[in-house]
Amino acid sequence: MLEPERILRLEDDRVVFLDQRRLPLEEADVECRTAVEVADAIRTMVVRGAPAIGIAAAYGYALAAARGEDLVAAERVLRDSRPTAVNLGWALDEMRGDPSAERARAIHRDEVERCRAMAAHAATLLAPGTRALTHCNAGGLATGGYGSAVGALLSAWEQGLLAHVWVDETRPLLQGARLTAWELETAGIPHEVIADSAAASMMGAGEVDAVLTGADRIAANGDTANKIGTYSLAVLARHHELPFYVIAPSSTVDHATARGVDIPIEQRDPTEITSRFAARNPAFDVTPANLITAIVTEHGVHEAPYGESLTRAVVEA
Amino acid sequence: MLEPERILRLEDDRVVFLDQRRLPLEEADVECRTAVEVADAIRTMVVRGAPAIGIAAAYGYALAAARGEDLVAAERVLRDSRPTAVNLGWALDEMRGDPSAERARAIHRDEVERCRAMAAHAATLLAPGTRALTHCNAGGLATGGYGSAVGALLSAWEQGLLAHVWVDETRPLLQGARLTAWELETAGIPHEVIADSAAASMMGAGEVDAVLTGADRIAANGDTANKIGTYSLAVLARHHELPFYVIAPSSTVDHATARGVDIPIEQRDPTEITSRFAARNPAFDVTPANLITAIVTEHGVHEAPYGESLTRAVVEA
Repeated sequence: MLEPERILRLEDDRVVFLDQRRLPLEEADVECRTAVEVADAIRTMVVRGAPAIGIAAAYGYALAAARGEDLVAAERVLRDSRPTAVNLGWALDEMRGDPSAERARAIHRDEVERCRAMAAHAATLLAPGTRALTHCNAGGLATGGYGSAVGALLSAWEQGLLAHVWVDETRPLLQGARLTAWELETAGIPHEVIADSAAASMMGAGEVDAVLTGADRIAANGDTANKIGTYSLAVLARHHELPFYVIAPSSTVDHATARGVDIPIEQRDPTEITSRFAARNPAFDVTPANLITAIVTEHGVHEAPYGESLTRAVVEA
Repeated sequence: MLEPERILRLEDDRVVFLDQRRLPLEEADVECRTAVEVADAIRTMVVRGAPAIGIAAAYGYALAAARGEDLVAAERVLRDSRPTAVNLGWALDEMRGDPSAERARAIHRDEVERCRAMAAHAATLLAPGTRALTHCNAGGLATGGYGSAVGALLSAWEQGLLAHVWVDETRPLLQGARLTAWELETAGIPHEVIADSAAASMMGAGEVDAVLTGADRIAANGDTANKIGTYSLAVLARHHELPFYVIAPSSTVDHATARGVDIPIEQRDPTEITSRFAARNPAFDVTPANLITAIVTEHGVHEAPYGESLTRAVVEA
């Protein structure tokens, strides 16, 4: 497993990121010395994944506080760096009361612990010999360590439940082909990368038993925003009568957003798709709750109706 | 419209192809002087698209005959160049009786005429203001001129029926982002390229009215092999209650193959997906007939049961 400090860490006068844009070809660092630089690292996807950018924002805020920066301005630039993941706002709300390095590091440590807890819950859903399909990177790189959907796969692998992982390459930025395949290779888990559009074909051929993804924001009713292509997989899983699981920490649940339609969807630069012709490039889509078999957080396995089961988890926590 | 002779043509001692691998960056030619060289051009996708590789094989065979090559060997190397499209075998069967340049050029001319006929039939299926979604390149480049699914879009555009085209980029070789977008731009048709995995999201947002694709081989029962990702679109169209149309010349129908499961699916080099990790790279998938709203050939609009409607078309032709 990739060490959490290797993915991102706060040092005395800087936040250090493993540059996820250059993986797997190169393991290079990016160092940020101001909140604005951290916000740039989030925006340009040096660091990505909803929990990881929450941690990054916490580190950026702690750095700004240590440097005596204007904290209102620091919070705004960090909060505005990307619109869809709710963890950014969540982490900044947490930091406002205690902008210390210790608090930021505790947020990082907590996210990794949440991953281990939800991975254990999620593994109970998988039968021995499972051939799983996953999208984008919901691995340690996305959560600051261990991973959400990939964490569940690691846990299932350790328990002897996992036979194979199909990795959607995940256009346009290829987080699956670059990051998830790299994490699975490191863990020694058998896997094959496929074009995103081949997932249906693998399901139709009976080569997939379950679909597992992470989430960038979960509305109060269970509608889930995640990397573009996730909704497609949920529809395809339903057609093929396969379970579709969302694995995400409770920091991803946005109780203030009633339904998926209220989640802002980031539109990224069309040149990520093609620099020659007109293109549309939404970074995320929303999967309606009724296509989700279960949502797994560190509190356990939640089933529909999610409004109730997600709220109960928070209250009981 | 791209001139048929610009896409591929037979000269005295060579077949000249517009190199589709280098489009849209560069309009370069590849010249082949033997059947083996033509087979290589097909295998390496200098020329692609089921009808176009049928025409290429006819030209390669005529070239071999003119040069006094061993025609049994020439036929074998051409037939084996790619496995899924049935047009290769169909064109070679046609050429065996008359291996002349005139016969090969007539096959080319006939395919383009078939495209115009099926485009006119297909346009009758589209309502004014249609926002169509297409996959891969079923354009003039794929058919030797005018196009099948893209031909239908051209015809609909000329009749004022078409509002917008969503172009799946079509991983791994990006025939949509490179070739279809280029053909639509040339025709002045409004279009946007999307990641393949974004098609579901566009359908869910109500921004798609119909899906049109070509075909590489249609089994006798209507099951249709086409570029990987086509089956995915058919499932998604069904979920969103959108019509899913296959537009293809009758040379694509294989009456000798009963069902889709009997169609050989080409597995291409995994390095087309990623050169760093293990990958699975099927070039095609099979869409079951029950997900297809209509199949349009030059004979007209065929509806289920396709076994009957496709056979009747051949008998009446």
